[in-house]
Amino acid sequence: MTDTLIKVDLSQSPHENEMVHNRWHPDIPMACWVNPGDDFKVETHDWTGGQIKNDDSAEDVRDVELEQVHYLSGPIGVKGAEPGDLLVVDILDIGAFEDSLWGFNGFFSLKNGGGFLDQHFPSAQKSIWDFEGMFTKSRHVPGVRYAGLIHPGLIGCLPDRKMLDTWNTREKALFDTDPTRVPTLAALPNTQSAHMGKLKGEEKTKAAAEGARTVPPREHGGNCDIKDLSRGSKVYFPVYVDGAGLSMGDLHFSQGDGEITFCGAIEMAGWLHIKVSLIKGGMQKYGIKNPIFRPSPIAPKYDDYLIFEGISVDEGGKQHFLDVHVAYRQACLNAIEYLKKFGYSGAQAYSILGTAPVQGHISGVVDVPNACATLWLPTDIFEFDIMPGSDGPTKFLDGSVDMPIAPDLR
Amino acid sequence: MTDTLIKVDLSQSPHENEMVHNRWHPDIPMACWVNPGDDFKVETHDWTGGQIKNDDSAEDVRDVELEQVHYLSGPIGVKGAEPGDLLVVDILDIGAFEDSLWGFNGFFSLKNGGGFLDQHFPSAQKSIWDFEGMFTKSRHVPGVRYAGLIHPGLIGCLPDRKMLDTWNTREKALFDTDPTRVPTLAALPNTQSAHMGKLKGEEKTKAAAEGARTVPPREHGGNCDIKDLSRGSKVYFPVYVDGAGLSMGDLHFSQGDGEITFCGAIEMAGWLHIKVSLIKGGMQKYGIKNPIFRPSPIAPKYDDYLIFEGISVDEGGKQHFLDVHVAYRQACLNAIEYLKKFGYSGAQAYSILGTAPVQGHISGVVDVPNACATLWLPTDIFEFDIMPGSDGPTKFLDGSVDMPIAPDLR
Amino acid sequence: MTDTLIKVDLSQSPHENEMVHNRWHPDIPMACWVNPGDDFKVETHDWTGGQIKNDDSAEDVRDVELEQVHYLSGPIGVKGAEPGDLLVVDILDIGAFEDSLWGFNGFFSLKNGGGFLDQHFPSAQKSIWDFEGMFTKSRHVPGVRYAGLIHPGLIGCLPDRKMLDTWNTREKALFDTDPTRVPTLAALPNTQSAHMGKLKGEEKTKAAAEGARTVPPREHGGNCDIKDLSRGSKVYFPVYVDGAGLSMGDLHFSQGDGEITFCGAIEMAGWLHIKVSLIKGGMQKYGIKNPIFRPSPIAPKYDDYLIFEGISVDEGGKQHFLDVHVAYRQACLNAIEYLKKFGYSGAQAYSILGTAPVQGHISGVVDVPNACATLWLPTDIFEFDIMPGSDGPTKFLDGSVDMPIAPDLR
Amino acid sequence: MTDTLIKVDLSQSPHENEMVHNRWHPDIPMACWVNPGDDFKVETHDWTGGQIKNDDSAEDVRDVELEQVHYLSGPIGVKGAEPGDLLVVDILDIGAFEDSLWGFNGFFSLKNGGGFLDQHFPSAQKSIWDFEGMFTKSRHVPGVRYAGLIHPGLIGCLPDRKMLDTWNTREKALFDTDPTRVPTLAALPNTQSAHMGKLKGEEKTKAAAEGARTVPPREHGGNCDIKDLSRGSKVYFPVYVDGAGLSMGDLHFSQGDGEITFCGAIEMAGWLHIKVSLIKGGMQKYGIKNPIFRPSPIAPKYDDYLIFEGISVDEGGKQHFLDVHVAYRQACLNAIEYLKKFGYSGAQAYSILGTAPVQGHISGVVDVPNACATLWLPTDIFEFDIMPGSDGPTKFLDGSVDMPIAPDLR
Repeated sequence: MTDTLIKVDLSQSPHENEMVHNRWHPDIPMACWVNPGDDFKVETHDWTGGQIKNDDSAEDVRDVELEQVHYLSGPIGVKGAEPGDLLVVDILDIGAFEDSLWGFNGFFSLKNGGGFLDQHFPSAQKSIWDFEGMFTKSRHVPGVRYAGLIHPGLIGCLPDRKMLDTWNTREKALFDTDPTRVPTLAALPNTQSAHMGKLKGEEKTKAAAEGARTVPPREHGGNCDIKDLSRGSKVYFPVYVDGAGLSMGDLHFSQGDGEITFCGAIEMAGWLHIKVSLIKGGMQKYGIKNPIFRPSPIAPKYDDYLIFEGISVDEGGKQHFLDVHVAYRQACLNAIEYLKKFGYSGAQAYSILGTAPVQGHISGVVDVPNACATLWLPTDIFEFDIMPGSDGPTKFLDGSVDMPIAPDLR
Repeated sequence: MTDTLIKVDLSQSPHENEMVHNRWHPDIPMACWVNPGDDFKVETHDWTGGQIKNDDSAEDVRDVELEQVHYLSGPIGVKGAEPGDLLVVDILDIGAFEDSLWGFNGFFSLKNGGGFLDQHFPSAQKSIWDFEGMFTKSRHVPGVRYAGLIHPGLIGCLPDRKMLDTWNTREKALFDTDPTRVPTLAALPNTQSAHMGKLKGEEKTKAAAEGARTVPPREHGGNCDIKDLSRGSKVYFPVYVDGAGLSMGDLHFSQGDGEITFCGAIEMAGWLHIKVSLIKGGMQKYGIKNPIFRPSPIAPKYDDYLIFEGISVDEGGKQHFLDVHVAYRQACLNAIEYLKKFGYSGAQAYSILGTAPVQGHISGVVDVPNACATLWLPTDIFEFDIMPGSDGPTKFLDGSVDMPIAPDLR
Repeated sequence: MTDTLIKVDLSQSPHENEMVHNRWHPDIPMACWVNPGDDFKVETHDWTGGQIKNDDSAEDVRDVELEQVHYLSGPIGVKGAEPGDLLVVDILDIGAFEDSLWGFNGFFSLKNGGGFLDQHFPSAQKSIWDFEGMFTKSRHVPGVRYAGLIHPGLIGCLPDRKMLDTWNTREKALFDTDPTRVPTLAALPNTQSAHMGKLKGEEKTKAAAEGARTVPPREHGGNCDIKDLSRGSKVYFPVYVDGAGLSMGDLHFSQGDGEITFCGAIEMAGWLHIKVSLIKGGMQKYGIKNPIFRPSPIAPKYDDYLIFEGISVDEGGKQHFLDVHVAYRQACLNAIEYLKKFGYSGAQAYSILGTAPVQGHISGVVDVPNACATLWLPTDIFEFDIMPGSDGPTKFLDGSVDMPIAPDLR
Repeated sequence: MTDTLIKVDLSQSPHENEMVHNRWHPDIPMACWVNPGDDFKVETHDWTGGQIKNDDSAEDVRDVELEQVHYLSGPIGVKGAEPGDLLVVDILDIGAFEDSLWGFNGFFSLKNGGGFLDQHFPSAQKSIWDFEGMFTKSRHVPGVRYAGLIHPGLIGCLPDRKMLDTWNTREKALFDTDPTRVPTLAALPNTQSAHMGKLKGEEKTKAAAEGARTVPPREHGGNCDIKDLSRGSKVYFPVYVDGAGLSMGDLHFSQGDGEITFCGAIEMAGWLHIKVSLIKGGMQKYGIKNPIFRPSPIAPKYDDYLIFEGISVDEGGKQHFLDVHVAYRQACLNAIEYLKKFGYSGAQAYSILGTAPVQGHISGVVDVPNACATLWLPTDIFEFDIMPGSDGPTKFLDGSVDMPIAPDLR
């Protein structure tokens, strides 16, 4: 029986759990300690800490308090780990809880979070995905079913003071270029709903005021949302503080490259089974700045694709210079238009791109002025044939089912 | 015996061949006509028309005349094709010429073309890759060998007048934001070394003056440089003019996602065997703006990867907002630093990333302010073990071999 | 929360559990009933019902009572199922019990069961395999570690009376050609240790006396030991009796093609999560005699292989006529000799072939008089390089660890 | 330009070509010599030397002279090769001739060759397969199209005298157990139509009288008909004579495991591009008796399968003991019955199993008395959906097209 070092109670507020935190700060005390070579389990809340419910209303997505995210389990201290080491993490397995076999995907309101296609989908919407063993399907998005590519959206080690300062300084500089922008350019430190693990009182208040938000991926990994960092993979993390301080959360049952729906993948609570070891001095030995990893030998085999191209000319016809972000947005919009011909609503198509194991490739990035990005849509996730043919598309869906929407209040 | 509809003579200037052109313009006459259902072969020059030689000097890369690129074979008229149709192209096979079993990869000088990492590799460099059947290796980059993922870097149909005007207008607008930038923001129409196929005299001059350069990918496909548009794939191209006018060239023996070295993939002359058919009215039926395609059932199986992450903080530590271009550049630089620990020069490592079937994924694109991109380096292309371990890397290479370099004159 | 319809208690004798049986007979009452469309869980004993222990002695393998095998959970009645239907079973997931994270592999004594290579390994031997999340490794077989390809070795529906008679008749006829052979030619009905589920008293005795043993695969599927019938696969079973009567057991964490060690794969107790539906009249519609199935979209990707050939000339040099059994035995023996050069004992090598996801292909079966079979050994399961090279093999193992052996008594 | 060391002229009898032979004998002189490290091309006849034509009659298959087969190109001497070495052969590429872009598949008459299912298909039949680049399809078998998995059916080194004697002795012993059987149990040495390369006159007659036929695979490899020994693979052959004496032929465009149609795969003439090197003393170093190989990194990705099971109970209901040959035959017959429900004739279905990249697995070989074999039918080769569903199969074919048949004369 494998030990579960960190447990969570989904019926309880994560703030009552001292082994959970939602900011990055070197002063957060270790939740527990392990030895190199140990394997153990860690439970996690979903990234919002239970704000989103398994129902047919998108109001919870619209009204989400984003200051709470992401609830991470940790930090876990690894004995002997020192700055400059690589912490090797074998993700031995990941799963949902037996009494919580579902996840959610949604689009945030443009006024509260937004997302990749927020100009096209400005209102909050939600889809619920049920898990049947290794598979998932949604009552809000008929006609698709896929095996999970389960992974932690967020995992990494505590920063040291110097790295934390670097993060805060550079993000503040960006924020200041357009401080009133909605959505914001960067989520700066914010004490609202901060949870600093075992830190209490004044120490907590001080750390919360400067603790980095968990939203962006950074040098330590963090919120990378890499769909292929899945169970079975082996990850090499930079270590910045004694004991490493590994934290993790934001579990996804499945996600497409880019996590374009932001809220987010198929988000779930659950557990990880991991094993840790060290490569002493590994950062210098291998010239490592950001984590590197080897993907899992077990992953869903969805390898027949229909591929959509996009170039860096935006929806208004404006030419951008080698902008992969714009190019990928076009590829995604092209795929959505295509799927609408088979009867999907735009929102359903968008949700598929955010949750299914689609690939997003940076295909060409030197042919001035156009970047070329490709969106790889796996064809085997559909219960019908989506390949083009002379007869044109058959409408599989009659439009009677759609995703719940929650318009902004006034 | 399959008919070869367009032949090229590598010992001859492409300008002497009326079935070749290097600009996009609706007035370029069809080089030949085929029927839907036909399969046939087409030969092509390498993209530079033979400017780069199989030798150990990079001076030809430094001195390349970029106004000449890309030499395309076509346009091929398809009987019955009308604007709004989809032209279905089965790429049945692609190969090098028996007497030209090699290709080149290089970095342009920052002053003449540049490229993705031109701030790091500002001088012209070159590597030559020999083909042994399905495989390639380079005397300038020891320790790697891989099977070819052969594809046309450039393929697409003629634009109509309206689309041509759109291209010229939007690219000029971008160019005008910084007209003296080196490298240039956009390659505008330019009569220097223009080749308009069968067009002659005044008609040619007029068309050349407004013909779109072939450098960027655009709505019709064109210079997409998508490594997976390889032999065996099936592509659906938008048709804009009667007869479609399909042209192709810029063959690559192998390339990584992004074609980050710009000059370019493993560039080669060779032939394609293709088959064409039509989906009448397909653009409207399927909501198609850019080409879509289904990848080949035959492609090299390099599916064990070491994956490098990059975020959109640039080399100077500056924070960019969800900029995938910056993030992928960091992932590539991280991979280069890693490979240097095994004895490669930076240039050799860069060349591997540009030529091997590496994947570039848009992994996260919503976690403000950092985009996350991943560079997937296939491990099986190396003749030695590149995985990390406790003992640190073993230097496989002693530095005695490197890629030719040609510093700028003056 | 998914319902568990059949539970087992590993600390209890399977004979105390009325929802378990170890013979095939149409009179065994349904253990429970479900509707088409239901998904549910089923727990199972290991095939021997707990006779083999997690220790370092092979005496339990030597002394195993084979009359007990296989303990199956079921039969499960499916409402509406009739003879001639196809019962569609989605294997949604399979797992080990949290408090029983290990499995066993062994060779039976030639005098009690034997196996594929029993002339070469005549004594009972055992290896224990521990599970770490999705992976397994053995303290008795160092240097290998692999992800599980978890599957039920045995699954199928109850025979009707006619089919049962057919089985008993043809197997008796074979048995009678050499009734004293050891190991036996066929396991005939035998009341010793028979467990007939809910059947009691005289009815039980009568049914046990004619119930088919569970050892061989037959028309209904049964003990097919097909490693690819793994979690995520979809199986179509012939139905012979009203209600179908689906039973299953003999879970394997991993196995090679052929299950050549007989005792067996990596054998374990555990649970299945399955879903059932019906194709009415499907046997006739599709011409089905034996089950057909579609493999899982999730399976370990061990796809780099070293392949060994074998032909149908036996160890004594005798020529057999297109005998694939002999040919595969030679391929296996060739692989064992190869692995011994890296330091493995013959028993360890044999155990790897029986437990790892090796493939066994019927490569050529018409070139008289030699069949050609191939054994595909996945190279990525080894912690060291097993490819041949000019320097010859490096001994990775020093012989200090081997598998427990238990010579026959007397 | 790669040198072609052995050329063949398809308009000429192979007997006029001294660099071709059709028997194995140590006295056959080397056709040419190469050095370790050389790469070069070799052309070959189809295995029958042109007896089968691209037409719509099966009479040539019925009347084939089997004493002629197989016409091999070689033997190629490798300088420095000695008995006990391993000859490493990189199969760099394989192709058809530009003016011979087709192949044949057929079933021999039961009276002249027979085959795996000759009791079910006793008359000669033929299908012709056209090549379109990397793909093939047949005018005699509609509804399927697949990429080639091109490989030499036959490749290996010359035996020495001792090995030749072993072969002849053991095969004669088998033959003598039923000398009048049709088809024969073994093809013994036979001077009719023997071609001994450069050997002439008395020497030729003597060698022909004892030269081993090329039909079966043996210790040296030879006619293994392994579909995965395809272009891109690396093979390690035992060496028995000074210079090794490598010969090859019997090219296949595509084949299923087992080559069950015997005549044969998609048989073609063509060329190989190979590279040779040596591992001195490799047989002893690695304990090698038969060839081993590593498959190609490039192979068609047909990895969605419908899998058919078969057990070792024959068509008459007779129980065989762990007979994989019988079990695979049942799996094949099951697949044929299934395909007939979609409109194929039995012959067409049989031809698909013989030519497409189907897999044949030895799934279970210890569960007395039944072996279990599985036939893996790739679903993506069909132009229609062959998966089972509630509605039953749709007949795709109307029976208007079938394979030519040629009943035995008299």
